[in-house]
Amino acid sequence: MSILAVGSVAFDSIATPSGKADSVLGGSATYFALAASYFTEVRVVAVVGEDFAPSDETIFRKRGIDTRGIERAPGKTFRWGGTYVDNLNEAKTDFTDLNVFENFQPVIPQEYQDTDFLFLGNIQPVLQTHVRQTMAKVRLTGCDTMNYWIQRTPQELAQTLKLVDVLLINDTETKMLARESNLPRAAHKVLSMGPRALVVKHGEYGATIFFREAAFGIGRHPFRAPALPIQEVKDPTGAGDSFAGGFMGYIASQAELNREVLKRALFYGGVMGSFAVEEFGTGRLQNLKRDDIEARFQVFRELTHLQ
Amino acid sequence: MSILAVGSVAFDSIATPSGKADSVLGGSATYFALAASYFTEVRVVAVVGEDFAPSDETIFRKRGIDTRGIERAPGKTFRWGGTYVDNLNEAKTDFTDLNVFENFQPVIPQEYQDTDFLFLGNIQPVLQTHVRQTMAKVRLTGCDTMNYWIQRTPQELAQTLKLVDVLLINDTETKMLARESNLPRAAHKVLSMGPRALVVKHGEYGATIFFREAAFGIGRHPFRAPALPIQEVKDPTGAGDSFAGGFMGYIASQAELNREVLKRALFYGGVMGSFAVEEFGTGRLQNLKRDDIEARFQVFRELTHLQ
Repeated sequence: MSILAVGSVAFDSIATPSGKADSVLGGSATYFALAASYFTEVRVVAVVGEDFAPSDETIFRKRGIDTRGIERAPGKTFRWGGTYVDNLNEAKTDFTDLNVFENFQPVIPQEYQDTDFLFLGNIQPVLQTHVRQTMAKVRLTGCDTMNYWIQRTPQELAQTLKLVDVLLINDTETKMLARESNLPRAAHKVLSMGPRALVVKHGEYGATIFFREAAFGIGRHPFRAPALPIQEVKDPTGAGDSFAGGFMGYIASQAELNREVLKRALFYGGVMGSFAVEEFGTGRLQNLKRDDIEARFQVFRELTHLQ
Repeated sequence: MSILAVGSVAFDSIATPSGKADSVLGGSATYFALAASYFTEVRVVAVVGEDFAPSDETIFRKRGIDTRGIERAPGKTFRWGGTYVDNLNEAKTDFTDLNVFENFQPVIPQEYQDTDFLFLGNIQPVLQTHVRQTMAKVRLTGCDTMNYWIQRTPQELAQTLKLVDVLLINDTETKMLARESNLPRAAHKVLSMGPRALVVKHGEYGATIFFREAAFGIGRHPFRAPALPIQEVKDPTGAGDSFAGGFMGYIASQAELNREVLKRALFYGGVMGSFAVEEFGTGRLQNLKRDDIEARFQVFRELTHLQ
């Protein structure tokens, strides 16, 4: 089934201990869409500037991604520069030029109205709410957010959370949102704000999915998937959105939504995140084969499963 | 098969967000021995003072632990006071009174010479080396250490590491020992120092076992076991030693040592650690039933396993 990603398309300039890359295609919608494209039909709503070249669009098109929802606006595309030093979990932002993204007003094309699954990338909660309300036929909505919105626009974010099914954030964001330092307690507080499921991303330690009581009719026991112990993380940019793309892409590819599908989705999230960090920018996500993904899934299984 | 724990027996005074406990039985050898006692025959070498009461010894005896190696010295038992604030992974030390532990010279009773498995708790590396060299018939040696020895006695620790089979330490200690910030790379560096396997404890995220190439004839793929998402950690003291007790106790209970046994051992380590933190001191570890342990093992399995 189809999935729509709403978020940013950007040009990133990245430095890590492994090297650097200048003005490479990035952004939450980009990473999400590429990762999800290995599982299902993907559509994108985002805004780009006049510097967005045909070769950039080709990166989406080659993966069969529907780009009709990418609006072109006068000016430049969103540009971000970041440096990762020792701690690859956190980038030091060198610059943020919002450019056309500053006035992004997502418009859902008429042809996208039948979309089954929706992913709200990390943008203003007010815009996330607006998009969700526009999409009447959506079966399941996934959502990302960040510290900035949790602290600056808590009311607006609370509105968004009432309308989403799965929230995907990290440990720090979960604890900040719940104002609670114990993770499982924080998770249950966040679930009481609206989402039926919460995926907490632990970086190199994997991710845990927590469920609201009786959500999806599957009980509330959490489930934990690993991340791969990786000797060289070349570029961690986009790992979280790639995780979300693998997670939601797999869900959208399945006929039913049950506990087993959500568990496997968490594994596929980790798998796509592990590929994303192997090269700078979206390099690795552009050229995967489905066999690569299945082989990595088996590595994740062997990493965690008893006989 | 039998297992010998060499380490500290102490009286701990602990404060956590859940409450406090005064002068309760603790120490690395105590937590280890109690956790391991559910799996196999356990012996202890440690030193205590005149304040070590018959009721303290009863705690060991009730679990069938052989206490003939606990030496009584003139003076007071090792006493430690610590406070856990928000971050339950790290205690602020309020006081450390080494007392009789200051001059601890472990003496292995003749009756212990046939011991099959050895656990060297977190004591001076020179003493760990001495004990290991004394125990000629040991089949497998597990070892703990800490920042203090890594920084203060690196030469002595290097000697110890050449004599141990499995080192059990946390992420920070692994990176410090290897002088390397990437965990998998750090793990392989540590393995090149001697141990055939390295168990890295990730606190609330579980643990990973890394293997030296062809160690135990099982290949070098790592394996990861979870920790339980716990809503109330009453007292984290001793969780690491309880983990080691479950890990090594399970290994000692098995006829063969193969990859599957080591994987399950990692799960049992997490299981025993999860019990240890449910009550202050060794409270929970004194009164478990084997059924409780198996039920918790199943919870760990369901937390991580796909169908």
